[in-house]
Amino acid sequence: MKYGYFDNPRKEYVISRPDTPTPWINYLSNSEYCAMISNCAGGYSFHIDPRDRRILRYRYNNLPSDRPGRYIYIYDDESSDYWSPSWQPVLKDLDIYECRHGLGYTIIKSRKEGIEAEVTYFVPLSDNLEIWKLTIHNLTKACKKLKIFSYAEFCLWRAESDQNDLQYIQNVAYTEFGDNVIYYSLYDRHPGYAFFTTNGDILGFDCDREEFIGPYRDESNPQRVEEGKCSNSIAIGGNPIAATCNKLILDSQEKKTIFFVLGVVKEKKHAKDIIEKYKDIKKVETEFSKLCQFWTDYLKKFKVNTPDEDFDTIVNIWNPYQCKTTFDWSRYVSFYETGIGRGMGFRDSSQDTIGVNYALPERVRQRLLDLARNQFADGHVYHLYFPLSKKGGFPNYLNPNKPYFSDDHLWMIIAVYDYIMETGDLKILNETIDFVDSDSEASLYNHLKIAIDFTLKHIGNHGLPLIGSADWNDTLNLPGPNNAGESLWVALQLHFALLSMIELASESNHKKDGIKFTNLAEQIKKHVNEVAWDGEWYIRAFTDSGEVIGSSNNDNGKIYVNPQSWAVISRIASKERATEALNAVKRYLNTEYGVMLFTPPYIEYRDDLGGITTFPPSLKENGSIFCHTNPWLILAECLLGRGDIAYEYFNQISPISKNKIADIHRTEPYIFSQMITGKFHPKFGAAKNSWLTGTAAWTLRSAHQGILGITPTMHGLMINPCIPQEWDGFTVVRYFRGAIYEINVKNPNHVSKGIQKIKVDNVKIEGKILPVFNDSQDHSIEVIMG
Amino acid sequence: MKYGYFDNPRKEYVISRPDTPTPWINYLSNSEYCAMISNCAGGYSFHIDPRDRRILRYRYNNLPSDRPGRYIYIYDDESSDYWSPSWQPVLKDLDIYECRHGLGYTIIKSRKEGIEAEVTYFVPLSDNLEIWKLTIHNLTKACKKLKIFSYAEFCLWRAESDQNDLQYIQNVAYTEFGDNVIYYSLYDRHPGYAFFTTNGDILGFDCDREEFIGPYRDESNPQRVEEGKCSNSIAIGGNPIAATCNKLILDSQEKKTIFFVLGVVKEKKHAKDIIEKYKDIKKVETEFSKLCQFWTDYLKKFKVNTPDEDFDTIVNIWNPYQCKTTFDWSRYVSFYETGIGRGMGFRDSSQDTIGVNYALPERVRQRLLDLARNQFADGHVYHLYFPLSKKGGFPNYLNPNKPYFSDDHLWMIIAVYDYIMETGDLKILNETIDFVDSDSEASLYNHLKIAIDFTLKHIGNHGLPLIGSADWNDTLNLPGPNNAGESLWVALQLHFALLSMIELASESNHKKDGIKFTNLAEQIKKHVNEVAWDGEWYIRAFTDSGEVIGSSNNDNGKIYVNPQSWAVISRIASKERATEALNAVKRYLNTEYGVMLFTPPYIEYRDDLGGITTFPPSLKENGSIFCHTNPWLILAECLLGRGDIAYEYFNQISPISKNKIADIHRTEPYIFSQMITGKFHPKFGAAKNSWLTGTAAWTLRSAHQGILGITPTMHGLMINPCIPQEWDGFTVVRYFRGAIYEINVKNPNHVSKGIQKIKVDNVKIEGKILPVFNDSQDHSIEVIMG
Repeated sequence: MKYGYFDNPRKEYVISRPDTPTPWINYLSNSEYCAMISNCAGGYSFHIDPRDRRILRYRYNNLPSDRPGRYIYIYDDESSDYWSPSWQPVLKDLDIYECRHGLGYTIIKSRKEGIEAEVTYFVPLSDNLEIWKLTIHNLTKACKKLKIFSYAEFCLWRAESDQNDLQYIQNVAYTEFGDNVIYYSLYDRHPGYAFFTTNGDILGFDCDREEFIGPYRDESNPQRVEEGKCSNSIAIGGNPIAATCNKLILDSQEKKTIFFVLGVVKEKKHAKDIIEKYKDIKKVETEFSKLCQFWTDYLKKFKVNTPDEDFDTIVNIWNPYQCKTTFDWSRYVSFYETGIGRGMGFRDSSQDTIGVNYALPERVRQRLLDLARNQFADGHVYHLYFPLSKKGGFPNYLNPNKPYFSDDHLWMIIAVYDYIMETGDLKILNETIDFVDSDSEASLYNHLKIAIDFTLKHIGNHGLPLIGSADWNDTLNLPGPNNAGESLWVALQLHFALLSMIELASESNHKKDGIKFTNLAEQIKKHVNEVAWDGEWYIRAFTDSGEVIGSSNNDNGKIYVNPQSWAVISRIASKERATEALNAVKRYLNTEYGVMLFTPPYIEYRDDLGGITTFPPSLKENGSIFCHTNPWLILAECLLGRGDIAYEYFNQISPISKNKIADIHRTEPYIFSQMITGKFHPKFGAAKNSWLTGTAAWTLRSAHQGILGITPTMHGLMINPCIPQEWDGFTVVRYFRGAIYEINVKNPNHVSKGIQKIKVDNVKIEGKILPVFNDSQDHSIEVIMG
Repeated sequence: MKYGYFDNPRKEYVISRPDTPTPWINYLSNSEYCAMISNCAGGYSFHIDPRDRRILRYRYNNLPSDRPGRYIYIYDDESSDYWSPSWQPVLKDLDIYECRHGLGYTIIKSRKEGIEAEVTYFVPLSDNLEIWKLTIHNLTKACKKLKIFSYAEFCLWRAESDQNDLQYIQNVAYTEFGDNVIYYSLYDRHPGYAFFTTNGDILGFDCDREEFIGPYRDESNPQRVEEGKCSNSIAIGGNPIAATCNKLILDSQEKKTIFFVLGVVKEKKHAKDIIEKYKDIKKVETEFSKLCQFWTDYLKKFKVNTPDEDFDTIVNIWNPYQCKTTFDWSRYVSFYETGIGRGMGFRDSSQDTIGVNYALPERVRQRLLDLARNQFADGHVYHLYFPLSKKGGFPNYLNPNKPYFSDDHLWMIIAVYDYIMETGDLKILNETIDFVDSDSEASLYNHLKIAIDFTLKHIGNHGLPLIGSADWNDTLNLPGPNNAGESLWVALQLHFALLSMIELASESNHKKDGIKFTNLAEQIKKHVNEVAWDGEWYIRAFTDSGEVIGSSNNDNGKIYVNPQSWAVISRIASKERATEALNAVKRYLNTEYGVMLFTPPYIEYRDDLGGITTFPPSLKENGSIFCHTNPWLILAECLLGRGDIAYEYFNQISPISKNKIADIHRTEPYIFSQMITGKFHPKFGAAKNSWLTGTAAWTLRSAHQGILGITPTMHGLMINPCIPQEWDGFTVVRYFRGAIYEINVKNPNHVSKGIQKIKVDNVKIEGKILPVFNDSQDHSIEVIMG
């Protein structure tokens, strides 16, 4: 069952009924001020850090669901009837409803009683505020006397106290009203001010939630809306809100626009200029145009045209859009991530850079340096850091006896390598960066080296890296008295990182290092193939007591997907073993909704495994379709040249393929989710935790470098597609190091992989690597597969 | 405006309309299993620790307010209409509504469409469960075919994760249904099981919240209720609930009873016997009778009869009831305290013991030892501890440069002294107890001594105790580079503690200590009177830079109440200064709703004061009527012999005096609240944070020992009332050390204070101290004032 469709010309997803299975949301953000909004206008806002500077409140997992939000009430003076153009919160039936989630904006449009209302919500690029632009059109033959109420519920800045320390936080709010503006702060003013205003004339306002809503009521039937007027309340303590009432008289067919501005400033005096600026509707329109231009410029950097429009829709629009969001907010803040404890994950943010470094290289550079600053002198890193302070920490589930995650620091190598391949910016390796726990500093290159050292110093009884608190799989804790659990997967990650280090050493004239890393990589490859091949696939880990995990001898957790995909990605597996392992994945783990993490799921809690067995079968890490792993598998299949399988995996995980089964899939069909329940759960196919997932960056990578085969290398752009055989070809426009590559790939022989010929500006070249031009020019690239 | 009345014969408060200004609640608890319930059946449950073993979920500070709860829906097959007998959550008008909060139980009764429903909620004394007993009476002339739906929403055991870690916790629930029972646990089963069952036949059930409620609905209109049948859903992950549907056919005038049982067990097999037991309505009735008997026995230990029935209602019923609640749960868990971070406060729990040690001496003894186990070897203590582990911690607002609260450890002395005076149990002083931070142990007596030592080792530039992170006033932080803030109030507390130690040293043969403490007390008294007398009153503190706080020279915070009351309580003040100081309190701080903490409030944030200035004027510690301080003042007035003023202060803070202004006061008129907004706030008189406050124990103390003047001493019960002159006298039945004192006080000359004559069993005695009998007999005591 469908709830909407993709409008590609406008780069929008259009939701055509309001009662989506979960709130289908959008992120409106300039990377500092962030407003999340659902298709019914639910959602919340924050400034830089959702923990410390939460502007609007949201009640997660609530009944009624998806409350509160950025609400507008239309009140008809004549009938005393009222409704909301976003359906929520009043929930009265609308004659027409449509929500358009665009890139950085959301438009909700509806009609009732002959009144058409359209609200455009967006955050301008250069100011820390959000705009709600409301246009009301009277389609009736009568003059309409309306009251327009706005409503936003403030959070008490510190999101954790706001939830947990009511006896304190319910006594610190301070609101003021003057010159058509509501100001809101805490009494100590430390967080700065929020302000709310409108270009229309305010008939009345309310700052006190209880005064506006009334006792035993809620957002669906506020007392003040029912009465048709505000009470001009001020909140001193209690729950501050911004509610206003504007008068609007519309002749038949007349149309008027009001807009509302909600923003933050450090000092109250700073608000004046901003408010002045946004009184002018032209300025508002200009800011909206700039936002649209930003996204046009962003997306033009990689644009594909294949025979599969769905594939193009995801690769050209929604996947890059989601990548920007995960890069901005890691796994910190969404409708499922409460923006309190998780901060910016180290492993997460490192991986997120690979989804954006072709479009935002300067921001990636800064992020990589911020991350490196969270490394300890022995090479391990904080698991997360907070955006305001950029200071790190460990989550409370860290095992104090194994105080690190075994994969975190190695992701830094992978991310830095990737950034350098995209930009050629080898200089970043010479940046000097402090360590967290000492006064010493080191070049970024040396930071990467000691990351390798840390892993090499923490090797277990079977010659594999100790798993620490866990590896990429946060819940595979392998607890026990010996702290001896080992991760095969980290061995693969280490090998992959070493391949990167070999190249970086070579390019930066660290010859000795290069030899050392090469030897190390060879040893690891040999060792892994000796100890970790189970017969048909690679194992996953050894427990504290030395039991194998991920073997055909296990009753549960026989085969895990990651060891197979990464054995290929990391070049550990021979072609034969790669083929055998990936065939096993297809045979045992593939489902119609995606590839499962492992099978069979564990059916009871096991002390020696830990967190992974705290979930019922087919949920989360206990064998769900954990989406992040699927693009790794696609990349592996592409390395093997199996384009049809890679494409099948891509399609079955791609959100656009869920559009027609949205009632089963539940989350947004334009955005990847963290997980989809596996086949042993009664709600097989239901996705959870949309938006913030490593799936975004890696899926874009699997499309760009895997299927389309366009991979930045140190000395040029490599072309080596791995496509479904039925494709006749495809074209890509790709910005790379200061030039534009207009790539036209033809597949006359209907192969999946293989290059016959490449012409650059009509001149045939040898090999698969397009030269670096850096000349701001367009270059035509013709590629013949076969 | 009134919302209800006191039914003293039944020891109930009766609420006669459901829309109280805040939820008016009750605690149903056997001190392990605790169920909070509002007058509309909202509320939640936990087992031992609300942080780690939360059974039912509650949405604090929610819209709609007071959700969820222990709900029942009555569905009429014929009309397809449905409603809730508790008004919430359906909110349909009822023909009759009444809620009776009794001691340990709540009865909600209503009538609609000729159907009378009465639900009794209680927690039995000896099993960890709650019972909802529903009796339905068909008052119509027709036969009624009804469906009865029950509804409770589970919390995912760990209350903090339940709020904050949705992406994890939303994937761990596990429910099962069998033999008429819903079982609920997390998949790892670590927390144990909750079970829900009914004695009726279950037509259908639901364990999955979303399946029962339906999309974009809430508790007011669940889809399954609207359809008249459950969907038999199981929750695996997601939000588990217990909802059942029973069929009920009632002939005209027929009455039937169904009951529901919700409880916890460690292992599923343990549930069987309990469920079997509670299938029998007689067992249910027996458990209810035992509960009522418990409270009869509890209250008989102190029973007063004065000319003022309101005074008696509070002193005999509601204040002791609240004291038991604060003793059980400290400041940890209520409708305003979220039961996550605060644990059992050290200073709070110490003070709470004085409200119950006449009734629960064995539990107080255990509590005192638990508290002492949270002392460090240098004498300071953890600010809080958690009930499951009994292990302590500091709150996150502790100043790491001043890592202690300057009052915490001294409260231990006051509590132990008080317990010994009540019980005569000097042996407790010889109990050996470990320190938190070392392998060493010490007798409780030595624990108390090093508490004194700690304070003596932390004295500031003006010879007063350093304030540390703060003193009793958590928000008077006095930050600064020198860590030099000093508390006059702690000097008074120290003097008070020393008076206790002098007596304990004497009684336990520590003669040298006695001399030392006596000298110390004299020095402190002299010094305080030299440095802390401002001219009309005592000052409050010195800031880090040495500025005086609480002086007539200050613009704000000129006069604080605590230094004045405690100068008297601690016997620091001479009679002249005591009178002058208390007169100043009356002149400057008294209001019609109670005495304010200080005046004038601070009007901007001050770095050198800290937390106290983060509140707007007249809220919380910035000069509200902070109720806890009022009984201290009453005790001080009684020491001064000013019975009329003491009585005036008692009445104006007593919740029963708020019954007629419940719309202004807002919180329960049978229970003290933490604070009432002061006169500089637009909502002057509005109370906040009811139930968990030190006000409870100290107000009972101020009635027992202050106004009624019945004070346990080491060698007998001292009689020295301080009453309003208009009283002709009063009687008290008082249990003390194994005997019953039937005290009849006459006041023929209408004095406030002074004893002419005391007769014990018709024999005149000298002095004011009644002997210890310990003979299980009644003794008649005649007291003539004058």
